[in-house]
Amino acid sequence: MVKVDGIKILDATLRDGGLVNNFYFTDEFVKSVYAANIAAGVDYMEFGYRADKKQFAKEKFGKWKFSSDEDIREIVGENPTNMKISIMADVGRCDYRNDIRNKSDSPVDLVRVATYIETISEAIEMIEYADAKGYETTCNLMSISRCTMEQVTEALEQLSQTPAMGVYIVDSYGALYPKEVRKLTRLYSDKLGPVGKLVGIHAHNNQQCAFANTVEAKNMGAKLLDATAYGIGRGAGNCHMEALLGYLNGKKYHVEPILDLVRYSMLPLKEQGVEWGYNTAYLITGLTNQHPRDAIGATKVGNRDFREQFRYHSYE
Amino acid sequence: MVKVDGIKILDATLRDGGLVNNFYFTDEFVKSVYAANIAAGVDYMEFGYRADKKQFAKEKFGKWKFSSDEDIREIVGENPTNMKISIMADVGRCDYRNDIRNKSDSPVDLVRVATYIETISEAIEMIEYADAKGYETTCNLMSISRCTMEQVTEALEQLSQTPAMGVYIVDSYGALYPKEVRKLTRLYSDKLGPVGKLVGIHAHNNQQCAFANTVEAKNMGAKLLDATAYGIGRGAGNCHMEALLGYLNGKKYHVEPILDLVRYSMLPLKEQGVEWGYNTAYLITGLTNQHPRDAIGATKVGNRDFREQFRYHSYE
Repeated sequence: MVKVDGIKILDATLRDGGLVNNFYFTDEFVKSVYAANIAAGVDYMEFGYRADKKQFAKEKFGKWKFSSDEDIREIVGENPTNMKISIMADVGRCDYRNDIRNKSDSPVDLVRVATYIETISEAIEMIEYADAKGYETTCNLMSISRCTMEQVTEALEQLSQTPAMGVYIVDSYGALYPKEVRKLTRLYSDKLGPVGKLVGIHAHNNQQCAFANTVEAKNMGAKLLDATAYGIGRGAGNCHMEALLGYLNGKKYHVEPILDLVRYSMLPLKEQGVEWGYNTAYLITGLTNQHPRDAIGATKVGNRDFREQFRYHSYE
Repeated sequence: MVKVDGIKILDATLRDGGLVNNFYFTDEFVKSVYAANIAAGVDYMEFGYRADKKQFAKEKFGKWKFSSDEDIREIVGENPTNMKISIMADVGRCDYRNDIRNKSDSPVDLVRVATYIETISEAIEMIEYADAKGYETTCNLMSISRCTMEQVTEALEQLSQTPAMGVYIVDSYGALYPKEVRKLTRLYSDKLGPVGKLVGIHAHNNQQCAFANTVEAKNMGAKLLDATAYGIGRGAGNCHMEALLGYLNGKKYHVEPILDLVRYSMLPLKEQGVEWGYNTAYLITGLTNQHPRDAIGATKVGNRDFREQFRYHSYE
């Protein structure tokens, strides 16, 4: 049996999945995910972003773009479970001084601050703010495959002095291979371990490496592992929760509730036309270490000129 | 750019792919694969099995179940290219003494002998026979995830004394993780390297690890790398050729012809109803280290009782 000591699994089905349907999930769907995660032993469930309503029109998105305390509360009540609740706050897209209240008034336990490496100081401000309000915090360093090791080292040194409980390797472009994930996990561990912080991984599946990379990071000591049901997430999607919990299945984690969720909620969602998952356009942006936006566009219109897509991205 | 010194890429599209459509490929399809592989710089193209016509009724299969010299010749002529031709000969399913002629009379360059560990001595007989007839040979050790390290070690010691140019790690069940692939590649290299033989990998995609595992084996020194166009192959399929050549793309290998092949031949084949590729049933047999036959059956009839499939295989 695979060891799970200290592992914290976070389900990002609603948050990363919301990127493919503008966060329009039915309450019934959200409740199914919540119940399945609890039964499976998932440690954290992320409900969505807490986006700034002044920047994003409320009528253009489902409620999990904003994940208000009230909307979360409507699903989880007092959340009388062992599973904690998280939201994601993007640097520059979250009016955190107004929208993040005291923890004692909120069902949220963890605020994950997502940032590019260039905006790390704003991220640190947000982390300190949310910590002062009583939340657990992490920093999610996006597009890590575009950063130099020097940049990452510097960011980790800054983050090691914050109250964040952990920092994530976020492979936004699905560009990393297992070897690079091991190298990054080692670097993160070296910088964060001595100050008692955890290493996390959030993988994308452009090259079908999301699960393999998550397992590799775990083997190298990463403790915060992200996954989503049936891999739902932007573009090629994420590490499949049913794969990760199947791998870790045992006393602490149980894959069966997620297998049911795939059967009764995720495959039906796909069949209703919600699109995500590996294809050749996503492979190409992964191989060339590019943002998936062009591949999302190509997928939407059924553009199969892969030769041209590869040429374009190879010389970008 | 990724180093490709000494790498030999083998395309198994027709052979492993044939397992999903009983080898009924049109000549036009076969010619497209052949042309794409040549343009891409692929080193070997496997045309199919050389199955015994006394055991397998000719009318139940397409011609690439048998891959006669004549049928191959009809596609490749004198094969005036740098790409070599291979066939697979299964222990117990190939009447090699009658069906493998002298190399000088055949378009085939390489005979790959596939065997379970229990029939290794028959495999060695076949390897010696084909070598004596003038062919290059390899041994493909199937279902390696079910073997103990002691069994594998013993098999490699025996094979190191044969004329085989290499031995493959064949992850028939798609059960291996990168860490295990590295361990096996190291063991293979230790046993085969000193006698000048190559290590090969043939990965299956049950847990979406086929590409990651192939890259890992390559990083550990494996030189013989199998892939198929769009991953076509039994059950969850194989390492995608367009992923592997995208990764290795450069002076020697060119991904573009395979991207065109995906567009004009592989996606249309899928759309005609030929079924392969990752799904939850295959994930389950991969996770539980089982033969994919039950998952193939479940996929065929659309059985989505994943909970029961997992329960059944976990206690087998």
